[in-house]
Amino acid sequence: MKNAIKSYGSSDILHKLENKDSLFLCAIASTRISRIPGITGAGATPELTDYTPAADVELVLNGKPQCLPDIAKTIVDGVPTPTPAVITKASVELADIPFLVADAGAAVKPNLPYFKINEEPGGNIKMGKAVKNSKDIFDRGVMLGRTLSKLTDHLVIGESTPAGTTTALGVLTAMGYDVDHKISGSTPENPHKLKHQLVEDGLQAAGFSAGELSSRPFEAVNAVGDPMIPAVAGIAVGSSVPVTLAGGTQMMAVCAIISEAAPDFNFDNLAVATTIFVAEDKNADINYISRQIAGTTVFAVDPEFERSESGLKNYTTGSVKEGVGAGGAMMAAILKGIDVGDIRRKTEDICRRML
Amino acid sequence: MKNAIKSYGSSDILHKLENKDSLFLCAIASTRISRIPGITGAGATPELTDYTPAADVELVLNGKPQCLPDIAKTIVDGVPTPTPAVITKASVELADIPFLVADAGAAVKPNLPYFKINEEPGGNIKMGKAVKNSKDIFDRGVMLGRTLSKLTDHLVIGESTPAGTTTALGVLTAMGYDVDHKISGSTPENPHKLKHQLVEDGLQAAGFSAGELSSRPFEAVNAVGDPMIPAVAGIAVGSSVPVTLAGGTQMMAVCAIISEAAPDFNFDNLAVATTIFVAEDKNADINYISRQIAGTTVFAVDPEFERSESGLKNYTTGSVKEGVGAGGAMMAAILKGIDVGDIRRKTEDICRRML
Repeated sequence: MKNAIKSYGSSDILHKLENKDSLFLCAIASTRISRIPGITGAGATPELTDYTPAADVELVLNGKPQCLPDIAKTIVDGVPTPTPAVITKASVELADIPFLVADAGAAVKPNLPYFKINEEPGGNIKMGKAVKNSKDIFDRGVMLGRTLSKLTDHLVIGESTPAGTTTALGVLTAMGYDVDHKISGSTPENPHKLKHQLVEDGLQAAGFSAGELSSRPFEAVNAVGDPMIPAVAGIAVGSSVPVTLAGGTQMMAVCAIISEAAPDFNFDNLAVATTIFVAEDKNADINYISRQIAGTTVFAVDPEFERSESGLKNYTTGSVKEGVGAGGAMMAAILKGIDVGDIRRKTEDICRRML
Repeated sequence: MKNAIKSYGSSDILHKLENKDSLFLCAIASTRISRIPGITGAGATPELTDYTPAADVELVLNGKPQCLPDIAKTIVDGVPTPTPAVITKASVELADIPFLVADAGAAVKPNLPYFKINEEPGGNIKMGKAVKNSKDIFDRGVMLGRTLSKLTDHLVIGESTPAGTTTALGVLTAMGYDVDHKISGSTPENPHKLKHQLVEDGLQAAGFSAGELSSRPFEAVNAVGDPMIPAVAGIAVGSSVPVTLAGGTQMMAVCAIISEAAPDFNFDNLAVATTIFVAEDKNADINYISRQIAGTTVFAVDPEFERSESGLKNYTTGSVKEGVGAGGAMMAAILKGIDVGDIRRKTEDICRRML
């Protein structure tokens, strides 16, 4: 089974996680920049990206989104690409993994019970005022991580934050990492230039240069980040059990915050898990970034969507790629003995039922 | 150890719960009537009762209340009576029981991560418009119960709702139970007349007579209840593991909702656990009420506060009595092998550290 999980580093954390109880927490948040046309594929229109995080977690827990009639999707050659929430739903249901939601600052709130960490969505990073209180959000995350880790052997943390790769680029740039053209995105073309320009403008507006905030993680988030980043970093830091950060290059920004805000953090107890679509994205390089941050090991799962007849096939040509912790949810399910082919088939079933 | 738990019924649920993992969830809520002078002891002044639920859970999780400088307390002969949150804190810490918070509609929100079930506090029952959407709150509770019961073997649900005995009286009266002078309260004198008058006025304003809503539980809550009641009822109904309702006569209103809203609910998997101060309250009769509702068995723990030198002694003369699930938290700790004398000593320590 474990053959389905590809490792891009040297950590042997997986043997600690096999057949352990896992708990999946999805942090949802918004950044004002998701409304910039072309920046993200996580919504049918720029305005609808505000609904995507709530719709994603409603889909996982309730079987369909309540806050809008149809789930956010990207159309490729007339075929809609389903949200990665369907992969997460298939994985946690097959492996019977409890799924909890934390609001780190979603513009639209889901119609289900969720952990409240932070109310306010992130602002426009172009103004250099992205988040008001990232240290407070981090501190509440620490408290939540402490509590949740009493309830499980393995905490898997995913996220749904439309345009979150741009804010990750912002934080990593501000903190001095070499991320030029290395950050992934939810569209095949990945508008690197637009993203870099936004970050550059934001840092300038905040009065900082690239790399100036290398040891000031919360200032980096406050200037050009989003509220998901300190929330997830805090939860990981508060956890007393192994943590999987379920996401792509956005989780690199989380790792960067952790390594500065909690210098004693044991990265041997942390995995980053994503989909093969991010890990082998030709227009980005998550492993190049991870090697710069505390030697974090990236793991990836390939759901073999080229075998799929549905819009899931669009993932293989660069649409969507990852989100709602899809890669980490698959990894957690596989570690509990689920076959990746069964995950793909159940994902297809869920897509069919949604139509 | 189990000798410390007194049973007032025939259920043998306790043997199912011994040495099992427990999870404690505290539902917090407000009702506008807590600001009526003399109705509750859960606050230094009527206005400060808005802060009590948040302060209680902050005390348990963070060691001190953040939202106000001093915790709500009743003064008896110059000696302040500590909030029951100190008993809960002592119990969950000694037994290493995870403590989670759910907002069912608290007027002031706590400074910690909590489950959001419902935003809006309850209104003034005198107007017959207590809660807008109790069925929605119940439904979200069901979802939360479903999720939380995947994380534990035993779900303990407490509450902090100042003036909540009056709204419990309202719901039970509307549903036709014989509760005249049977409902407990947080003050030694227990203003039965004031409470009954409020309920009578509220039912009249809503256009119902006592007993008319016997099979319409959500209308009863909407007219003269509070948002904690449907939230906790829903969580219990959603749970797939045994549930302890940790509270006094307020939990009788919760049981009444459960028995009508979920006729298939198995009351053999439910315990009501409170303190000896409620179970043997001369000015009320929780067991008389429980016998009317699906034969629910009440259990009670005596922390022997007559041995205490501090303000905890005021509990033995009828101050405060119960709250924040103190009785159920003690019971859960005892079922995990903790000695009740150790709970009392740790409670005294916590009180000393707070001064």
